[in-house]
Formats: sequence, C-alpha cells, structure tokens
Amino acid sequence: MSASEAFSDEPTRLAKIISTIFANQSSSAPSVEHPDGSTISVVAGADRQDDCAVVAVRGDQDLVIGSDYVRGPKFRLYEYGLLSEFDLGYYLVAANVSDIAAMGATPIGVLSVVRYPSDMTDAVFEQVMRGIDQACTDFGAPNIGGDIGGAERLILSATALGSCVPGGALLRNGACPGDLVCLTAPTGTAGAATEYFRSGTSIPVIEDKYREVLLRSWTRPQARVREGACLGRSGFVTSCQDTSDGLKATLECIARSSGVGVVVDEAAIAIPDPVTAVCRELSKEPLAIVMGDSVDFELVFTIPPEREPDLSAAFDREGLSFGVIGRVTEAPGATMRLRSGECIELPGAAWRHTTML
Amino acid sequence: MSASEAFSDEPTRLAKIISTIFANQSSSAPSVEHPDGSTISVVAGADRQDDCAVVAVRGDQDLVIGSDYVRGPKFRLYEYGLLSEFDLGYYLVAANVSDIAAMGATPIGVLSVVRYPSDMTDAVFEQVMRGIDQACTDFGAPNIGGDIGGAERLILSATALGSCVPGGALLRNGACPGDLVCLTAPTGTAGAATEYFRSGTSIPVIEDKYREVLLRSWTRPQARVREGACLGRSGFVTSCQDTSDGLKATLECIARSSGVGVVVDEAAIAIPDPVTAVCRELSKEPLAIVMGDSVDFELVFTIPPEREPDLSAAFDREGLSFGVIGRVTEAPGATMRLRSGECIELPGAAWRHTTML
Repeated sequence: MSASEAFSDEPTRLAKIISTIFANQSSSAPSVEHPDGSTISVVAGADRQDDCAVVAVRGDQDLVIGSDYVRGPKFRLYEYGLLSEFDLGYYLVAANVSDIAAMGATPIGVLSVVRYPSDMTDAVFEQVMRGIDQACTDFGAPNIGGDIGGAERLILSATALGSCVPGGALLRNGACPGDLVCLTAPTGTAGAATEYFRSGTSIPVIEDKYREVLLRSWTRPQARVREGACLGRSGFVTSCQDTSDGLKATLECIARSSGVGVVVDEAAIAIPDPVTAVCRELSKEPLAIVMGDSVDFELVFTIPPEREPDLSAAFDREGLSFGVIGRVTEAPGATMRLRSGECIELPGAAWRHTTML
Repeated sequence: MSASEAFSDEPTRLAKIISTIFANQSSSAPSVEHPDGSTISVVAGADRQDDCAVVAVRGDQDLVIGSDYVRGPKFRLYEYGLLSEFDLGYYLVAANVSDIAAMGATPIGVLSVVRYPSDMTDAVFEQVMRGIDQACTDFGAPNIGGDIGGAERLILSATALGSCVPGGALLRNGACPGDLVCLTAPTGTAGAATEYFRSGTSIPVIEDKYREVLLRSWTRPQARVREGACLGRSGFVTSCQDTSDGLKATLECIARSSGVGVVVDEAAIAIPDPVTAVCRELSKEPLAIVMGDSVDFELVFTIPPEREPDLSAAFDREGLSFGVIGRVTEAPGATMRLRSGECIELPGAAWRHTTML
C-alpha cells in the first residue's frame, strides 16, 4: 500500500507524521522577550508528545488565551474544491492567532485539535498538519500540542496562547467618547469571495488578479500579529477586537462593551477593488459586504485622538499601516454618517453565525 | 415558547446563558500561590467575552497546557441514555484537567469548545455548560473562555491551563532503572462500565452499589488534581502520566519515552470489586479490563525507591494514597510478573482509539 493510500491508526500517525513535522521543536522554538526583559519560551512542545506542552515564563507577564473552532468541511470554498486540506489547517491557525493579536499580545504557541473520519488517508491528514505548521511558522507561534484521532467527520479546533507585559492586554471595553476608531486594513474581501464563489457554475468573469485576492483571503488569511503587538506596546490603545465576526458586529461589540457609541464615516470606509468587481457583477451593495459578516482578520481599535501621530510613527517604523474610520461618541449605538450627512444604522447583515460561511 | 423549547442563536446564548453562569468570574476566580511565592490568577474570564481570557502571571513559573477532544454523542453510555448532557460537560473538563494533574501542575483554567446541532434547545445547551461549570468548581479551575456555536452535531473539546514552579513539570521520560512504578488508585472501573452497559437489554444483575460505582466513573470522573500537585511539589518524581489511554498503554509509553522497561507485579494490581462483579457475570478476564483500554483518570508515576517513605508521608498528610505496582528495569519493554513467577506481556487491549468507547 502506498503512503497516500494508508489509513494508519492514531499511534502510527503520531509516530510517523506528527513526530516528523514537529521534530526538535522543543529545542528550536523561538523565545519571546518583552520590553521589560521578561521572557517566555516553549520547553516541551508537540515533539515531546507528553500530556501537556510546557512553557517557561520568566518575569511578570499577562497571558492571553483563546479557542476557536472552524467549520472544516462546511467551508463553502472547501465544498467547491477551492480550499485544500492544507488550506484548512492554515486557516485554523490564522483564526486562532488573530485573537491573540487582537489582545495586543505576542503569540507564543498553538494547540490544534484535528479529528478525522476513518476514510481520511495519512496523506490528507499530513496535509492538514502541514498547513497548520506553515501558518505557525508564518505567524511565529509553533504548534506545541493538541489532540488527534478519529471522529465521524473532520473537526478542526485550536487554542492560541500569547503573552504581553502586565496590564498590557487590550480589551474591548475601554473605548472613550472622543477616541478615534481605527482599522488595520479594509475589510470585505473574504465576504466578497464567499458571494463570488457561491455563484457556482455561473461564476461571472472578473480579472484574474482579483480572483486570486478573493481566494487568498480564505487560503492564506493573515492574522495581524505585528500590528497587534505594536498596538499592545503603545500603551494608549483603549480597546481592540478582530473583525472575524464582521466589521459591523465588531463595532457594535466594542460600543456595547465600552458603554459608548461609534459613528463611522462612509467616506473613510475603503472598498477593496476585488469587492467592487464582485459587487458590480452580482449587483450587491459594496458597503453591505464590507461592513457585514465578511470573515476578515483585521483589527478594529480605538485611541485618543492626540495619540494618532505617535501610533502612525510607530506603525511607519515597522512598515505597517492603519486608517481612521470614525469616532467614539457618548451616545450609544453604532451608526454610519453617509457622504450626504445623513446618519444610518450600520449596513450589513448582523452576525448570527447562521449566515456566516 | 418556554425556555426549554427555545433555540436561540449564538449571541443570545452568550448573553442569556453564558453570561448568567459565569457572571463575576473575573473578580472571583481563585488565585494560586506557589511555594516560592509566585502567583497566577485569572483577570479576564468567560464573563468578559473578549477575544481571549487574560491570566496574570507574577513571578517565574512553568505553564502546562493541553487540549483534549471528547467524543460527545459517541460515548456508548450516552447513547444508552445513561449520561446526560450535564455529564458530558463534566466529563470534558475532567479529561482535560487530568492532563494538568499528570504534569504535576495546579490547574488554573479551562477553555471549552461547545458546538451544537440546530435541534439542541437552550435548555439542553445550558445543561452542557452547567456540567462544565460544576466540574470546573470541583477541580478548582474556572472555565475562562472557549467557543460556542452551531455545528452538524454536538462537538466537545477543551483546553486546560496549569502552572507549577520553574522546572517542576513532570514529563514521561525521566523514569530510571530501579525506580518504583506507582499508581494513585486501581484502574478498570470505566472499562468494566463500558462492558457492562453495552450488554444492552440483557444486562446481568449486579449489586446496586457496584452499578452506581460503574456509572459514576463516566458521570463524575475525578481528575487527580490534589495528587498531581503533591507529586509536582515533591521534587523527586521521575515521570508521570495519566491512565486515560489505559494502564497498559500508559506503562508502555513511560517505558518507551524513558528508554527503560517496566515490570508490573500481578500481586500488586488490585481489582476493584465492581470490576470483579462485571467480569464474573460477563466471563471476562479482570486483568485484561484493569490493564486494558479502560478510560480511568488515575496517575502512573515513578520514584526512586528511597523516596517512597517521604511521598507516603506527604500523601498521608493530605489524606491521599497511592500503591506501588512494579519496578523500572534497564531492559526495555513492559511486562507483568505473574504470581507463578512467570513473566508475560502486559494483558489488555492495545490503545488504538478505535476500540475505545
């Protein structure tokens, strides 16, 4: 039987596949040093295959930790044959690391739960793990553990661990009236991709370069790790959250958590070209895609207006960028000021996790 | 519509159910202080519903972190109607906290991933979360985050986080020839329960008190949290692992990881009375149940023989106990010395995660 046709049991996959991919991880995992001299490093990772991973924390730190399940085979683009199992593994890590970035922390490690149906071959399983490993490499946080084994269908879930200086974690509840509402980069591409590719055999023609950008928003989603760490280090960000539930839901959540309101300027909301192209072909409203339940991994954050120059300079130094999209208000709610001057409810579908993917 | 019939969406379940169960958690979560004065405490837990939980680490520590998926609806005893959704939630936490105990660490928090089919009512969902919360209370580690939402079927996965003094984590690879092999309490009850209840309508009669013990091994599995912390503090335990893959697999794993062998004395392996009762009725071999793939959460560990009195005294002081079941040998392999003096391979089914539940 060739390797691509093998259906090994769990101990064999641990010994043959996991051990190979994560060999020597414990001795080569990067150590993170915070500005105050504290460090955090992996001392026993996935290569050790112990009950747990071990992470050495030296000096006072705040840890951040979050878990995200991703839908695996229920991704529409996977069903259409546009995502490989490698891509699913990559996505799993990006979605989890994004939550660490949104806390202003530096990711340290990921634990991945990969359960698979009995008809998944070793070769396909290895592709999932290779995708996980590639994303971990790209985001600088090794896959230090987790759980593999059989299940009725492919199940992908993970946990990401990060660290920052004491008190440095960015929560959602500190936005103050007068703060600027900022966004790391325009949203909407992932949502436009879903709309576009769901049209199936009747997919309209758009430029190849746009089609590629749409696809990459699902095959190689980029967690804003460097931006998040920069926001965390700044010391003056009052709230932060990633846009994985859509921009509208994110703004509403920050407003509600902080007991404030937000007003977004229509003129400040950029529409990425691929989104424009898709909306033109499918007769969709671009603002609804950009604000709605598009699963992008940008960061929304709030800062006192007088700090904008400092943050711009800090981002510039690292070759990063952000845009100001609105203001925090005392009056509750999340609204959009149109170019006409009229204020409306934020466009886009509400996040209910039923319409998402 | 009554609450028991409601099928709320995710934001509603977060607002109505999660917020209620975990209210004020961040302000009331216990703080752990290690013997060296370092502390670890939850500062933003599930009640904050942020991107991540935040845990304050003050002073040098080693963190341990592990993830375990549990099979949910594929538990045999759940299929037979013997486990409730509350019990599944409880089990999820116990299985995850057990891995922290096996590292000699103190559990700090749990993140639970609970995804459910569209036909799961709010009331049933709440039972899962209440089971999680009860186990977290029993084991002293709050449920500080995770992920909820829809899926094709009930999916339960979790991650547990623990902490110990620097260098204090117990790995599987330190067993030395001459060490004693120890076990916190006899295994086999969970495996006997599976054998017993799988007999379906033809379940033989055994004493009620035994039946209850069998059932409790699945409804209220007990992670050996206090034992694990005691082993971690001792400073002389050379290896440790929990028996969630069965006693045979655990012994084989420690032997393999440590590059040694183990010899278990048949005379030292206690057979719990309920196991004896089940084996008599079903004509099974008790040793095969006790050593095989019974999913108990006991701890196997190794210690230098001269340290046994110290550990006995330390366990005694806390009202805990353990037994010596064998010896570590230079010659590799895991064998059993029968009462007759003959040495045989360890009895019981090998762990392959295909025959388990």
